[in-house]
Amino acid sequence: MTDLVRIIGIDPGLRRCGWGVIETRGNRLSFVACGTLTPPTDLPLAERLSLLFAGLGELMDRFAPDEAAVEETFVNKGPQSALLLGQARGVALMTPAQRGVAVFEYATNLVKKSVVGTGHADKVQIQAMVKILMPTADFKGADAADALAIAICHAHHRVAALRLKASA
Amino acid sequence: MTDLVRIIGIDPGLRRCGWGVIETRGNRLSFVACGTLTPPTDLPLAERLSLLFAGLGELMDRFAPDEAAVEETFVNKGPQSALLLGQARGVALMTPAQRGVAVFEYATNLVKKSVVGTGHADKVQIQAMVKILMPTADFKGADAADALAIAICHAHHRVAALRLKASA
Repeated sequence: MTDLVRIIGIDPGLRRCGWGVIETRGNRLSFVACGTLTPPTDLPLAERLSLLFAGLGELMDRFAPDEAAVEETFVNKGPQSALLLGQARGVALMTPAQRGVAVFEYATNLVKKSVVGTGHADKVQIQAMVKILMPTADFKGADAADALAIAICHAHHRVAALRLKASA
Repeated sequence: MTDLVRIIGIDPGLRRCGWGVIETRGNRLSFVACGTLTPPTDLPLAERLSLLFAGLGELMDRFAPDEAAVEETFVNKGPQSALLLGQARGVALMTPAQRGVAVFEYATNLVKKSVVGTGHADKVQIQAMVKILMPTADFKGADAADALAIAICHAHHRVAALRLKASA
């Protein structure tokens, strides 16, 4: 009998940060909770990041995940938007690590491939497949569905990823 | 008699994060401390960011600054390095804000102009001027000197910046 592992997936963003918590035991997946953090956009940047940190910290307390998975965002919109996204991503990576939760990063293409079967799936396909894999998942939008897809991707790859981490 | 204000300047970076603490009363500036945080580069990204957060948090505890100033970094090296820098910058902006310390951002050119008198000063000129403005400053390299320059820039602009913040 393999252990039950609780995973939080995070799709980092400053305006909308998706999160999804799942459990996996061997090949079985089950849905726990999901949602989207939306720090008010009219606040100064430092306060928006601080709210993101507080929100993610609250999720870590509430769901006590064993492992965290964060999307390795591909940026194709120029340095200024990369800098903005990086700021949110830094907080998303740091918050679990700061609490001793191991953080794993997955490229967008691998997340899509793990869930839909192809690295070029669109948002609608991802949402449909997350719904098939976890019928009880009540996501209300692309961000939470993406976060669940990241968590599912980690559930599929975690044994290999842990082995890699141990040998690093 | 005007109040004594303690300022921490932060020059964010993942490999080298400069910091400098100064005090200002009216037009007078005095040096308190400075240094550079260097999270080990061989750790995973999330852990490097976590160490940066812990290091900055320790400085906030030790020096209890009233205000923080962070450089508004200009990125001209493509989206991938902007993303990396953004991650460190997100943690640098968030750490003081999360402790209730007001955070101010200044463009690199304004920092240079405040300290050297021109927006196109090089690192050597900045270090020389910081040394003239604060002879006791014992920085050992460009990162800590840059952080002190950011703090000095904020000391010069803080009254106007606070007024702007209050009216936002």
